[in-house]
Amino acid sequence: MRAIVIDKPGGPGVLTWREVPDPRPGRGDVLIDVTASAVNRADILQRQGFYDPPPGAPAYPGLECSGVVTEVGSDVEDFKPGDRVCALLAGGGYAQRVAVPWQQVLRVPDGVDLAEAAALPEVACTVWSNVFMTARLRKGETLLVHGGGSGIGTLAVQLAKAFGSHVVVTAGSAEKIARCLELGADEGINYHREDFAEKVRADVILDIIGGKYLPGNVKALKTGGRLVVIGLQGGSTGELNLGMLLAKRASVHGTTLRARPVDEKGVIVRGVVDNVWPLVEAGAIRPVIHARVPMSDAAEAHKIMESGDHIGKILLVG
Amino acid sequence: MRAIVIDKPGGPGVLTWREVPDPRPGRGDVLIDVTASAVNRADILQRQGFYDPPPGAPAYPGLECSGVVTEVGSDVEDFKPGDRVCALLAGGGYAQRVAVPWQQVLRVPDGVDLAEAAALPEVACTVWSNVFMTARLRKGETLLVHGGGSGIGTLAVQLAKAFGSHVVVTAGSAEKIARCLELGADEGINYHREDFAEKVRADVILDIIGGKYLPGNVKALKTGGRLVVIGLQGGSTGELNLGMLLAKRASVHGTTLRARPVDEKGVIVRGVVDNVWPLVEAGAIRPVIHARVPMSDAAEAHKIMESGDHIGKILLVG
Repeated sequence: MRAIVIDKPGGPGVLTWREVPDPRPGRGDVLIDVTASAVNRADILQRQGFYDPPPGAPAYPGLECSGVVTEVGSDVEDFKPGDRVCALLAGGGYAQRVAVPWQQVLRVPDGVDLAEAAALPEVACTVWSNVFMTARLRKGETLLVHGGGSGIGTLAVQLAKAFGSHVVVTAGSAEKIARCLELGADEGINYHREDFAEKVRADVILDIIGGKYLPGNVKALKTGGRLVVIGLQGGSTGELNLGMLLAKRASVHGTTLRARPVDEKGVIVRGVVDNVWPLVEAGAIRPVIHARVPMSDAAEAHKIMESGDHIGKILLVG
Repeated sequence: MRAIVIDKPGGPGVLTWREVPDPRPGRGDVLIDVTASAVNRADILQRQGFYDPPPGAPAYPGLECSGVVTEVGSDVEDFKPGDRVCALLAGGGYAQRVAVPWQQVLRVPDGVDLAEAAALPEVACTVWSNVFMTARLRKGETLLVHGGGSGIGTLAVQLAKAFGSHVVVTAGSAEKIARCLELGADEGINYHREDFAEKVRADVILDIIGGKYLPGNVKALKTGGRLVVIGLQGGSTGELNLGMLLAKRASVHGTTLRARPVDEKGVIVRGVVDNVWPLVEAGAIRPVIHARVPMSDAAEAHKIMESGDHIGKILLVG
C-alpha cells in the first residue's frame, strides 16, 4: 500500500506519499481499506518531531479514518468485511490501509457520507470524553470553548447545545465567530479584541491553549467549575492561583486521547456511539468540513491547518 | 452564654472568654449545649483577620462541636432535645451554645465519649468529601497525605486504610511518622530529610501546603492521579506543569468546606454517617486527641497548634 511517510522531522515538505508494507491485523484488530483520514494538530507536532507515536502504533501520521472493513482478527465479533466504519487511531490514518483494535472502531452514522465520517472520530471522542465524561457538563450549565472554529470547537458547540447548555466560544476572526453562532453558539468572543476572562463565567472550559490561558481560565470559572486542558498551543506551564481554585471549589484536568489504553478508548467510543451518533443521525450535529485534499498531497492539508484560517476539519481523501 | 470573642485580629491573646447574647434557633436549626469544640487551622487564620466567617455564620470561631440538643426549630424532624450530637459549623463552636442547620448535625457514634466527638466532624467531613467524594480513592490505590500528624492526616490515614488503600504520609518529625505508622500508614516521609516527589507515586494526594508543593505534587501523581488541595500553608500560587498533567491525564482540585451551601454540607454529612461512623463504631477509626484545654483558655490551645508539635486534634472543653 501507499502511506504518508515522515523520513525526518520538518515542514510540510517532509510528508512523502510512497509504497510501504501492508499492515496485518492482529487477533483483536479490524483491517480498514481507508476512504479518508483527517488532519489533527497532533499530526503537525508529529511531523515536526515533537510527538512520536505511542509504542505499538503505526509510524505514519493520522489519528482517525473512515473506510470499509476488509478483514478482521479471530477475536473480533462486532465487525465483518464490507462494513462501513470510521475509527479512532493511535496513528497510521494517512495510508491506504490501517489495522486498528476493534474497540476503537465505530459504524458510520446513518446519513453521513463515508469520506466525511473520517472527520468525526477524533472530535467526537475528544468532546465526549472531556466535556461530558470528565467535566460532566450538565443541562443549563455554561460551556466555554476556546478555538471555537477548530474541528473540536465546531463539534463541541453542536454537542453542548444539543444537550441543553449555554455555549460561549473564543475565536480569532469574525468569520469563525459567525460560523460558531450558525452552529448554535450563544456568544462569541474575538480574542484579538476582548479578554474572555473579563466577559464570561463558565461551569466548564474546554481549552487548547494551556499555560498562557491558565490564569484567565481559572478566573473565568464559576463556583464548582471544571477546566479541561487538552492542548498546549500557548505553552506547557502556567501560574495556577490555588487560592482562587479553592475559593471556587474548582478543578483543572489535563487529558490526552492518543496515549490512553485501548480499553479506555473503547469506553469512550461506546459512549460516542450511544450518545453522539443518535444526534448525528437526527441531523442535530453535522461534521464541519473545511476542505478535502488528496491524501497524496497531505503537505497542502498541513499548510492549510498551519495557516489557522480553516473552520472545522480538513479531510484527506484516498 | 459565654463565647470566645475576637475584638481585633492578632495573636492568641486576643481570644477573650466573655458574656455574649444567646443564639436563637431558626426554623431549620438545632440548638446545641456545647460540651466541647476543637481547634482547626482556619480558626487561627480567623483570629489573625485573614478568614472572616461566611455571611450568616456566628462571629465566634469554632468549626465543630459536640454536645446535647436543647431545642429544635419547627422544621427539624431528625433531632430532639436530649440527643447527643456533634456538628459541622460555619463558626461559633467556641461558645457555650450554638445554633446550626440540622443538615450539619450528626449523632455521636456509639462508643465515642461526648467530648471526644467534637474532634470528628471537620476531619471526617473533610476527608470523606475530598478523598472519597471528589478524588474517588479506590481500594488498592495509593493515597499520599501531607501533614500526616494533623487532625485531618490522622483521620485520613485510618479511613483510607479501612477502605483498603496504600497510605503514605509526609510529616516533620520521627515522632509524627511513628504515630502515623501506628495508625496504619504504610510509609512515612520526613519532609526535612527527603523529597516526597522523588520517593512516592500516588493515585490521590491530599494536600494542605498549596503553591510550594504544586510542582512536586504533580510530579508525584500517577497516570490518572487526582491532587486535592485543601490548604495553602505554603502559598496560594504555584507553577502548574500542564504538559505533565496532560501526559498523566491527571487533575488538580481545590476545595473548602466552610463556604459550601448547607445542602452540600448535608450531602457530605450523610456520607460520613453512612460510611465513616460504622468504622468508628467498629473501632477501626478513633479520634486522635493531642490535648484537652478549657475553652476559656482557647489562647493556650492556639499556641499549641501554632507550635506545630501536636499530633491529632486539640479539644476545647466547656
